[in-house]
Amino acid sequence: MIKDCSIGVDLGGTNLRVALVSRAGEVLERTETPSCPVAGGDVVENLATAIGCLFSDRVAGIGLAVPGLVDAQSGGIVTSPNIKAIEGVNLVDIFSRRLGVPVFLGNDASLAALGESVAGAGRDFNSFVLLTLGTGIGGGVVINRKLLETATELGHVTVEASGRPCLCGNTGCLEAYAGASAIAAAAREAVSSGAATRMKNHDGNLTPEDVYRYFKDGDAAAIEVMTTAGKYLGVGIASFINIFSPDAVILTGGLTGAWDILVEVAVREASRRAFPPLFQRVKIVPSALAGNAGIIGAAALAFS
Amino acid sequence: MIKDCSIGVDLGGTNLRVALVSRAGEVLERTETPSCPVAGGDVVENLATAIGCLFSDRVAGIGLAVPGLVDAQSGGIVTSPNIKAIEGVNLVDIFSRRLGVPVFLGNDASLAALGESVAGAGRDFNSFVLLTLGTGIGGGVVINRKLLETATELGHVTVEASGRPCLCGNTGCLEAYAGASAIAAAAREAVSSGAATRMKNHDGNLTPEDVYRYFKDGDAAAIEVMTTAGKYLGVGIASFINIFSPDAVILTGGLTGAWDILVEVAVREASRRAFPPLFQRVKIVPSALAGNAGIIGAAALAFS
Repeated sequence: MIKDCSIGVDLGGTNLRVALVSRAGEVLERTETPSCPVAGGDVVENLATAIGCLFSDRVAGIGLAVPGLVDAQSGGIVTSPNIKAIEGVNLVDIFSRRLGVPVFLGNDASLAALGESVAGAGRDFNSFVLLTLGTGIGGGVVINRKLLETATELGHVTVEASGRPCLCGNTGCLEAYAGASAIAAAAREAVSSGAATRMKNHDGNLTPEDVYRYFKDGDAAAIEVMTTAGKYLGVGIASFINIFSPDAVILTGGLTGAWDILVEVAVREASRRAFPPLFQRVKIVPSALAGNAGIIGAAALAFS
Repeated sequence: MIKDCSIGVDLGGTNLRVALVSRAGEVLERTETPSCPVAGGDVVENLATAIGCLFSDRVAGIGLAVPGLVDAQSGGIVTSPNIKAIEGVNLVDIFSRRLGVPVFLGNDASLAALGESVAGAGRDFNSFVLLTLGTGIGGGVVINRKLLETATELGHVTVEASGRPCLCGNTGCLEAYAGASAIAAAAREAVSSGAATRMKNHDGNLTPEDVYRYFKDGDAAAIEVMTTAGKYLGVGIASFINIFSPDAVILTGGLTGAWDILVEVAVREASRRAFPPLFQRVKIVPSALAGNAGIIGAAALAFS
């Protein structure tokens, strides 16, 4: 049997996503199950079941996209704040023994960048920075078509040294300003500070999507919150441009739904901050693969 | 004749430094002349004279370390604020035609990193970030023993978004807080703000070395200035650790003379900010080649 495809697994979202992917990066079959490790149960068995459904002799290898810090050399997971149960577990050892094929591991945002490079918005660029704008902010960097194999924790670059506390323990991280949790928190703060905003009449917990809706309706406090987040996103993007002189910055994740405010403000801010010759050549574009970038990138590890 | 050495040229300091360097990174002969392009005169002719003194049949190629933004692909100099005369000049074309050997070009801080990797403090590390702490702050990054061929303008990463203006046009750059010019400016500000400091009786312009001397003497304002610079250096280092998960951070340049305050404060600050598993494995060390790192790295381009 020709081993012409691989399996990509993304543990980075609220659902566990597993796909059979062709060598060219095409998703052939895909499962998405809420029985994700996050939801409890035995992580390894949940994974084994999901992978088992798609496994066959055709499969050349398996790639796992994991949120958190990954040690590429050992295949170990150093820290994974959202899936504590896999910290210290050597998934590479376990699954390569069980299934008899090579197993690879990477950070989910880094592998999203690899996915975009293989089959998405990164195909046309030699070098790009990818930012995943979700609850938190992750990053991946491709230089000369190769994934930069370092932590690239781009959400945890300081943008305001004496600024807001971040969940990582630092203060003033990009994520503490431009992540979805930060946007929701800033909106709740605006409400509790007594600002004149329709958000104070909101039923239930304010989500970033709610804040975006209030922004669309012209609510001044929501505009302020979204503008601040966009500004800091631009500060971060400018730093990444000055560091990586990329051909493109690719943005993905839930928050890219608010492109008309978040990204537009960010681009304006970055244009004022980055070295002009570097800014002039960079394109800031949305992801082409969205939720599939991580599994495609993970699957690509088997052929790299 | 065996081509067993190359010529490295560093245009990054106040003196023009040119050296004949062995394949192993050993400096065989070296000239340093104040008739640097900065001092006026015809840049190309000055360079030709200095290179000519060391050129022979043994020379496999020539590497030029240039301050500023370099386009590695074309060999062109995009911007070089300190040597305006070479902006747009294609030194690679000129010297490869004149001398009949391959000529290479790189950013001076990046090539200092390459030099440290080949023959200096970086020899023992697979991956490291080098910071040149001079008037400004430059950076170079080596990942898996290869130079990262991007701008790596690490001095122009924002550390305080609404902070001090930087010469690059941005606000809150690392360089605007922890570069030597920034330290001298902060000291002058302290004096003119009427702070109780012996620096107000200083004859002539305050240099960073002066500020360091007042710090050594226990002057409170000088301590404050140096501590602030060190703190921001630590903010930057923490971001670079979170991005590059390096084995080491190598510090070079004039300001490393103030290691006991600048670097010690920076290390403490970075330890509080960087991801703990990444900080634990990083070593923060001084350069081993100091002023020769750039020429050794430039010369190494001929053999890479």
